[in-house]
Amino acid sequence: MAHWLKSQLTKLGATDIQLKDLGIQEHTKDLALPPVVLARFGTDANKKNILIYGHYDVQPALKEDGWNTEPFELVEQGDCLYGRGATDDKGPVISWLNILQAHNELKLELPVNLVFCFEGMEESGSLGLDDLIIAEKDKYFKGVDAVCISDNYWLGTTHPVLTYGVRGCSYYSITISGPAADLHSGLFGGVVHEPMIDLSHIFAKLTDPQGKILIPGIKEMVAPLTPEEDKLYDTINFDLEGFEQNIGSKTVLHDNVKDALQARWRYPSLSIHGVEGAFYNPGAKTVIPAKVVGKFSIRTVPNIEPRKLDEVVFKYVNEVFASLKSKNTLKVELVHDGDYWVSDPHNWSFRAARKATKAVWGVEPDLTREGGSIPITLSFQNNLNTSVILLPMGRGDDGAHSTNEKINVSNYIEGTKTLGSYLHFIAEEEKDA
Amino acid sequence: MAHWLKSQLTKLGATDIQLKDLGIQEHTKDLALPPVVLARFGTDANKKNILIYGHYDVQPALKEDGWNTEPFELVEQGDCLYGRGATDDKGPVISWLNILQAHNELKLELPVNLVFCFEGMEESGSLGLDDLIIAEKDKYFKGVDAVCISDNYWLGTTHPVLTYGVRGCSYYSITISGPAADLHSGLFGGVVHEPMIDLSHIFAKLTDPQGKILIPGIKEMVAPLTPEEDKLYDTINFDLEGFEQNIGSKTVLHDNVKDALQARWRYPSLSIHGVEGAFYNPGAKTVIPAKVVGKFSIRTVPNIEPRKLDEVVFKYVNEVFASLKSKNTLKVELVHDGDYWVSDPHNWSFRAARKATKAVWGVEPDLTREGGSIPITLSFQNNLNTSVILLPMGRGDDGAHSTNEKINVSNYIEGTKTLGSYLHFIAEEEKDA
Ligand SMILES: [Zn+2]
Ligand SMILES: [Zn+2]
Ligand SMILES: [Zn+2]
Ligand SMILES: [Zn+2]
Repeated sequence: MAHWLKSQLTKLGATDIQLKDLGIQEHTKDLALPPVVLARFGTDANKKNILIYGHYDVQPALKEDGWNTEPFELVEQGDCLYGRGATDDKGPVISWLNILQAHNELKLELPVNLVFCFEGMEESGSLGLDDLIIAEKDKYFKGVDAVCISDNYWLGTTHPVLTYGVRGCSYYSITISGPAADLHSGLFGGVVHEPMIDLSHIFAKLTDPQGKILIPGIKEMVAPLTPEEDKLYDTINFDLEGFEQNIGSKTVLHDNVKDALQARWRYPSLSIHGVEGAFYNPGAKTVIPAKVVGKFSIRTVPNIEPRKLDEVVFKYVNEVFASLKSKNTLKVELVHDGDYWVSDPHNWSFRAARKATKAVWGVEPDLTREGGSIPITLSFQNNLNTSVILLPMGRGDDGAHSTNEKINVSNYIEGTKTLGSYLHFIAEEEKDA
Repeated sequence: MAHWLKSQLTKLGATDIQLKDLGIQEHTKDLALPPVVLARFGTDANKKNILIYGHYDVQPALKEDGWNTEPFELVEQGDCLYGRGATDDKGPVISWLNILQAHNELKLELPVNLVFCFEGMEESGSLGLDDLIIAEKDKYFKGVDAVCISDNYWLGTTHPVLTYGVRGCSYYSITISGPAADLHSGLFGGVVHEPMIDLSHIFAKLTDPQGKILIPGIKEMVAPLTPEEDKLYDTINFDLEGFEQNIGSKTVLHDNVKDALQARWRYPSLSIHGVEGAFYNPGAKTVIPAKVVGKFSIRTVPNIEPRKLDEVVFKYVNEVFASLKSKNTLKVELVHDGDYWVSDPHNWSFRAARKATKAVWGVEPDLTREGGSIPITLSFQNNLNTSVILLPMGRGDDGAHSTNEKINVSNYIEGTKTLGSYLHFIAEEEKDA
């Protein structure tokens, strides 16, 4: 699709089009990474430079997974366009091309210079993109004033949103080793320290069943909730009952929207994912696992520093283990981490997007955050030293990674107008000091 | 091998030889269960009737598993006979035939009547044997005075033992259900009650890391340790350091032989086996498992009644779960159970075996129990209403279910003498009232 994008961009009058080779994928012999497509539209030194990011790769899809239509044919039914990538993220990428086309056909001058960056590895962790951003920050990306990304979704199905934050994630493993090999519980039960019992005791000390993290020092790192920030949540359109219907159970920890959304977006959370090395099949096996690896992760928010977090996690897990007085051995390790990202939802880029939303949709957008991480957001912000905005087109029920992915026609059309208007409003908006 | 046994028994003068058909294995179309071989030797109404149990089936074995010799050829090297079944349980079965042969060749009259029961499904759970015992208790097995089984091992490698007990096992599952499908921890972490967190809290309340069961009502069911029973442990030959070398770690809960063996044989223990439904692969997955099934089991001892145990387990697990105030749902269930077996190690059968051991080995046997269950022992005791003794020939390092299974030549010869002597001593021993 990189070449298709190149030809479209060429036709539309983009310049300096480059397909950036990212080399061979690690641990493969000759699997070339799909190139990042870079292009410019306009180079007027008196205009602001807006970087547009999108991705042209998609999740895998097979009709037999449960699609009602061919996943790789775009099918219009009712108000919806069905097809893999409709909302994530081919739809929004093409809407940027539509904006160029509209300006061309209407002979309207674009009020800003655009720098396009479309990658093809987003669904596989944006391999290589970080390095490219760093390499090009003073070259292709020099002078970028703001970054706009349309690759997430409304919170619900009726109200447009602007997204100003995502949580980070630090993933840990706890390895507890006892005997050299698995033992039979008949012969050894009650005789040896069991790694799985030790691990259960540590797991139970990580968080309480109400989601309160029990590791000291984390709460203290969380940026206090200001009255101003708290107020942002007062008007957000969110339906807790619909949310419970979505997950298929009435097991939400909170009884009101504000607590639920703050827990999801602006507070850390700890999840226990599972255990490697223990018995996991159906049925019954009377085994004492010799070595178990417990996996848990913490979603991070401002101002939790990953290295400081590792420190308090390692210290606490080791202390809890010491208190168990077990003769087994424990090792706690960071598996991977990604930092949180947060922006000022009142900065000039958000002000422009707010005006654009109001102009197109006739309502104030909700200001949202996301629970999960989008690492590339942070990479743009830090490396280009600029503001990033997430300006979604699709709805919360689009089914981005699911079967029957769709985008509503109305969202596509009004969303495209919103993105286009954003360019006009940000051209006029005074940059923050 | 049933037919080989039949021809050997015929040659040796056994009578009333029957190959008992156990029918077709459940869930198969036409897989016939191997028959149980029944035979008599002597029918003198003035003699005691001793039932001899053994099994002619063995564990699977392939040379490439790590055998130094062909597993299904008997190879003599040094003091050892190597081969699958050498010690479990073809060796002991054939030693009973050797005893008949020796009496025949020496023209010695057997002082008891023997009733042989050799099965071919022991390594697969003795399918069908229970039903056969019940069906034949007033027929083929009518009038049995005592049961002798040679199908376990010395505790160590130097000292003969008599075994008078095995623990039972009650295996439980705890199912905790939350959302309808697995969730992403980025989107839902901190927002929903996580089944895996609830389960961890319950697991941690089952037993402490020192092996103390935390479920109330179990300790109270355990038969008190009498000074007489306690004394049995004073003289047992057991090397805790060698035991730790065997399991490959210094993680034994106890610092002395008596506590370790009592914990292994005469006290209950609780082991946590694993979790079904959680993430169990290597690597990292940011999943909130929607439904997890925790598996644990309790090894049971006198006088824990299985139904009473279920009651206290179910009550406790439900109470702990209620205290978590989780909105998830919990179900705790018994997966399977098998009762403990214990005999009076001073009864007439054990007295005879003790005299036989002393006569052959020149030492008092250690009185041992086993941590794991041997359900058929209990079935003989209960259905035939008679005393059962476990009188092993092999050593603790024979590797019954492992590669390079062996029996020492000296154990085979002296063990055969011991079993033969047992028949003579029990003939003379006065039956307990
Ligand atoms: Zn995407
Ligand atoms: Zn995606
Ligand atoms: Zn056996
Ligand atoms: Zn066996």
